[in-house]
This record gives sequence, structure tokens and C-alpha cells, in this order.
Amino acid sequence: MAVCFSSPVKLKSIDHFTLLFNPKPKNNTNKPIFKCNASVTTTATEPQPLFTSVKTFAPATVANLGPGFDFLGCAVDGLGDYVSLRVDPSVHPGEISISEISGHSKLSKNPLWNCAGIAAIATMKMLNIRSVGLSLSLEKGLPLGSGLGSSAASAAAAAVAVNEMFGGKLNSEELVLAGLESEAKVSGYHADNIAPAIMGGFILVRSYDPLELMRLSFPQNKELFFVLASPEFEAPTKKMRAALPAEVMMPHHVWNCSQAGALVASVLQGDLAGLGKALSSDKIVEPKRAPLIPGMEAVKKAAIKAGAFGCTISGAGPTAVAVVEDEEMGKAIGERMVEAFWKDGNLKAVAVVKRLDRVGARLVGSIPR
Amino acid sequence: MAVCFSSPVKLKSIDHFTLLFNPKPKNNTNKPIFKCNASVTTTATEPQPLFTSVKTFAPATVANLGPGFDFLGCAVDGLGDYVSLRVDPSVHPGEISISEISGHSKLSKNPLWNCAGIAAIATMKMLNIRSVGLSLSLEKGLPLGSGLGSSAASAAAAAVAVNEMFGGKLNSEELVLAGLESEAKVSGYHADNIAPAIMGGFILVRSYDPLELMRLSFPQNKELFFVLASPEFEAPTKKMRAALPAEVMMPHHVWNCSQAGALVASVLQGDLAGLGKALSSDKIVEPKRAPLIPGMEAVKKAAIKAGAFGCTISGAGPTAVAVVEDEEMGKAIGERMVEAFWKDGNLKAVAVVKRLDRVGARLVGSIPR
Repeated sequence: MAVCFSSPVKLKSIDHFTLLFNPKPKNNTNKPIFKCNASVTTTATEPQPLFTSVKTFAPATVANLGPGFDFLGCAVDGLGDYVSLRVDPSVHPGEISISEISGHSKLSKNPLWNCAGIAAIATMKMLNIRSVGLSLSLEKGLPLGSGLGSSAASAAAAAVAVNEMFGGKLNSEELVLAGLESEAKVSGYHADNIAPAIMGGFILVRSYDPLELMRLSFPQNKELFFVLASPEFEAPTKKMRAALPAEVMMPHHVWNCSQAGALVASVLQGDLAGLGKALSSDKIVEPKRAPLIPGMEAVKKAAIKAGAFGCTISGAGPTAVAVVEDEEMGKAIGERMVEAFWKDGNLKAVAVVKRLDRVGARLVGSIPR
Repeated sequence: MAVCFSSPVKLKSIDHFTLLFNPKPKNNTNKPIFKCNASVTTTATEPQPLFTSVKTFAPATVANLGPGFDFLGCAVDGLGDYVSLRVDPSVHPGEISISEISGHSKLSKNPLWNCAGIAAIATMKMLNIRSVGLSLSLEKGLPLGSGLGSSAASAAAAAVAVNEMFGGKLNSEELVLAGLESEAKVSGYHADNIAPAIMGGFILVRSYDPLELMRLSFPQNKELFFVLASPEFEAPTKKMRAALPAEVMMPHHVWNCSQAGALVASVLQGDLAGLGKALSSDKIVEPKRAPLIPGMEAVKKAAIKAGAFGCTISGAGPTAVAVVEDEEMGKAIGERMVEAFWKDGNLKAVAVVKRLDRVGARLVGSIPR
């Protein structure tokens, strides 16, 4: 199915925002703060495609990170979604079609109802693409509803694919805004998955109006591994969000704030023990959500007992995420976490050990015109 | 008045804590995290005084810093209290006497009811001083109830004076615990003034049980000035604390948490604009307290309009603190803040511009034995 930009897709926030920041290369680590203000303006002239086809990858992401609830996330390498995008003369100019989805059978090929499609449309609109038709193929590497930013990975890969196809004219923050269109539709207007999926590393979402993102650079000379234990269990974001309290006791607010500060400092200082401790310290969200995921509390205990620096729920779950500095040790810890999911939660689970992704969504292949 | 250590002074938390960390020099900036666990043990053998007298200075401190409420504080150079301490054969061995207090007439000379006295006693107890009597003289450089950590400065100067007198055997965190005894009595068991007063710079209080402090090092090659505008107005900590809500709406919690994270990142990165913005961003505490200080809201606006990076209430007020990078500009901004206090609050005020203090409480004079 092809969709024209004059279709009824709502690009609410894009319509309402204007990007005021200067264009700069993606993944620029020198200037850690990015600001977008008011509405995104489309590029003045329509760019032409530089490629016949491009292929992009976008990583899984771990949002929340305990006390970083709803404003902090990071990218995880080696897990994610691929998007292949090609110029398709059979698609009406200015429209996009989803030709294939592999790795998941339930996803809609209607671009208006597909994360990749929505983000691609938003990006094409920003670029003012009117005279080229595109075909998109999505390879899902991430399961849905796992707490690993599955929708954000699809959206990020699609937004970056469209942008790369036309010469990379949009910067990271504009791409995050495009991805946010998709996130808003499927899981809420939250950038804590889509921002790190596009930009890599740790990203702090400072505000939405204007969108302001801070890159928290984990030191290049230090290693950081995540153990991700995913049980066969559905933890719908809606249900997990409904479990949250409307109000927070002041002492818990102060506690979580201080742990959030400690988490940020630990990331910037490359202090794994501090990071893990902060990860485990949430007194507000995790205590409400963990009981809804069978075995989660035992999994956390098992991970820490086995030597993880810390453990919490990844995103809204059900994946449990632990932090380690050594890959082999991470594998052993993953086994303990899987055992605990089985023993205490009666859930089958699989565990993987993955590095911090410092790059974010990227081009992995292209055929020049 | 002299007080013996077997007196009924309550050293509750010191009795309940044991310091587990290794002794290390004060103001060590290489290891940013400090932990104390369980109860403070007194030194095994009684140290002898190295000096006939010592004189110490402890700086003013700005606690809260907007979204850093109750867990973040920093020290301000050039404002503070002095303590002179001498070996006094006329004081009963193991006891301390307050001989003089200048700069403030209302303070008690009873060491049990004086911030400097309580902290000195706690420090002597930690050092196991039994055979030397001491006389303490306090020069108040800070007004009481100003929101600039007046009680913490007295306590810090006293604790460091006693420690230096006997060879500096206690480290910073032990001294913070001694100072906390004093703070607990006069303004609550909060370390966000006493920790930076003793250690200098920005200190994040991560937890109390065990006491865990994180030094947030502001880059050495960058300047940071505070404009401190203090009106003639009393803002009792108790009243200012009573103004706080018992619960916080979840969106405000998330907002303040993200700003606290941004504040910490800005300090570590030496990003003054980011720091100022975070300082100004509190949606929970400042909105409740500012209306209780006549003119405060106008002062904040005036400071930011005049070019400050940000402005908020210092501690529980009534001092307003703004952040600038240039001393001369700070003076001009201070004038605008004083004008606003007068115009909108009908309050006389004085403004000073002071650097970040990176050192904390220190010896400024000594006479060897």
C-alpha cells in the first residue's frame, strides 16, 4: 500500500515544531545538548535520491534504567531491526509502500499503521519529497512488547533510511522528531527509546517543548555490557503504565531524584558499580511493575547475587536488564536470570549479553544510482 | 562553659554508624564516591595535639539548587565562618569551652546548643580525646537563616579545627558525620550543606544509611560565579519545609528527576547554560516556597532578564542565587536582583558575587606546639 503525504496521517508535533538548531552531523559527541523549538519546516528544495537502495540498522534500547523513568534510555548493540529502502518507479511519486515484513507476521503493511511507515512518512515530509516513490522492507530483529524498544528500532531504521537515501540532510534531533510521530501512535509521546535508537549511547530527554536531548557520553575507554533476560510473557505498556501511582511521596521523590543524579554521574564517569547501584535503586516505578512480571523480583536478586552491578526492568518489561563489565561473566549471570524466571515465575526465558551501542541507527548498505 | 564527653549530648547517628572506608586525605578528588557504613568507631589511641592553636575557615553553601532538592549542594568561596581553637589548660581535659562568639550576639555559648560546639564535641569523641581541654572561638561571617548554610559553616569549621589540631586523622566523610550531628539538631538530618561545607565543590548526597556522598567535579579550567542576593527577611527552615507538598504529581516527579539529571550532567561537563537552566527548572519546591519570600519571583525574572544562566532560592531562602560566568556581569545582575527585591517585595537586600569554592573547610592558621 502506498501513502501520499496529503493523506490524513497526523503529524501533530512535527506540524507544531520548528527546528531552530544548526544542522550538524549525526552522532556528534562534542556538543551534548540538542534543542528543537516550534515546528519542523520542510527543506526548501526537494533533494534527489543519492542511491537506488539503502539498508539501515537501528539498535534495541533500554529505557527508564530504574530512576531514569521516562527520561533516560540507552542503545544496545547487536540487537535491532533492519530497513531496506529502494526507489520504486511503481510507487506513486511522493508516496511510500511497505513491500515486505520479515521476522513478525502480525505487523500491518499499511504505512499509516506501521512504526517504520509512520516514521518514514514523517521523514519524507520533513525532506519535502514529492517526486520519488519508495518501497520499504522491514526485518524485525526485535520481538514486540519485550521492553527493548521494538517500535522505536523500526521507526529509527526507517527514518534514517529515508534520510540517508536523500543525502542525510536531517540531523539526529529532526530524525528523533520523525520517530516520535511513530512512538506517539504506538506507545506514547516518549523519546526515551527513539532518541537513543537514533543517536546511540545514553540520551537524557530534558524536555519535549522544545524537544531537548542531552547526550551522556559513556567513556570510550570503558566497556559496558547489558544482560537482557526476556521471558515468554506479555507486559503491555498500557497495563504497565496503569500500574503507576498518580502521585509520589516526597521522600521517594527526593530519593529517586538523587539516584537519577547518581545514575547520570555514573554514566559520565564510566562508573559501572555506581551505574548498577543506581539502576537497582528505583523506589517508585519498579516496585509497582515488578510484581506484574512473574519472577522479576527473584531475577533481580539472582542477577545481583551472581555479580551484576545492578538490575531492573527494561522499559515497561518484561525483559530484565542487568549491567556487567565482562561478557563471559554476563553469560553466567544470564543463566541465573533465566533459571530464576523459570523457578520463580514459571516462565521460559532467554538471555543475551550485549554491548552498549554508541552509534545508533546507521546505514549498513547502499547501492549508488 | 565546658562540656565533658560523658555528657548527655546525643550522638545518635555517630553511635549507630561505623566507618568502613579506608582513611584518605581530605578533598581527594580522584575517587568521587565515599561510603560510610554502620557506626563511627573512635580512634584506638588518643592522638596528641600538634598545635597550640589552629584557625579554620568553612565556606557558605548553596543547597537544593532547584531540582537538587535535599540531595545536592555546593560551596561558595569568600563567605563563611571562622573557628579558632586552642589547647586550654583551664578547660577540664576531654572537654570543650566556647570562649567567644563574634559576628552574632544571639548564639549560645553552651557547646551543646551551638552548631560549632556540637560538631567539635562529635569530632573529639571520634578522635577519643580525653586528656586535652580545648577553647573555641567562633567568628560568624554568615547571617543565620539566610539560606547560605550558616549552621553548616560553623559546624564544618569546628569539626575541621578539632581534626587539624590532632593531626587530621579523620577523613572528609567522618567529618561530615560529625557535622551532621549539629545539622540534625538545628535544621534536620540533611547533609546537603554540611557535606559541601567540608568537602568543597558540588556534592551529591546519595544515601544516608550508609552515608554515601558523590563529588561532582566542576571542570578546573572553567569559572563559575554565584550572585547571592540576600533580603532582610526571615524564612525559617521549619516554615519553608512546612510549605512543601507531602506528595508530588507523577509528571512533576519525572520532570524534576530529568532536570536533576541534567543539572548533574551540566556540573560535570562545566556547562553553565545547562546548569543555569536546570537551576531554574524546579516545578515542585520553588513554586511553593517562592511566594513566601516577597519579591522572589520578580528577582528570578530580573536575574535571568539581566543575563544570568539561571536563578532559584538558595537552600530554604530567603537568599536568591543566580549563576553567571563573569564577575562583572554578576555585579550588574546583582543590582537588578536587589532592585527587584525592593520594588516587588519591599525588602532591602544586598548582593555579592562569589566563586565556586572547590576546597571546602580548611586550616587558615596554626601555631605549632
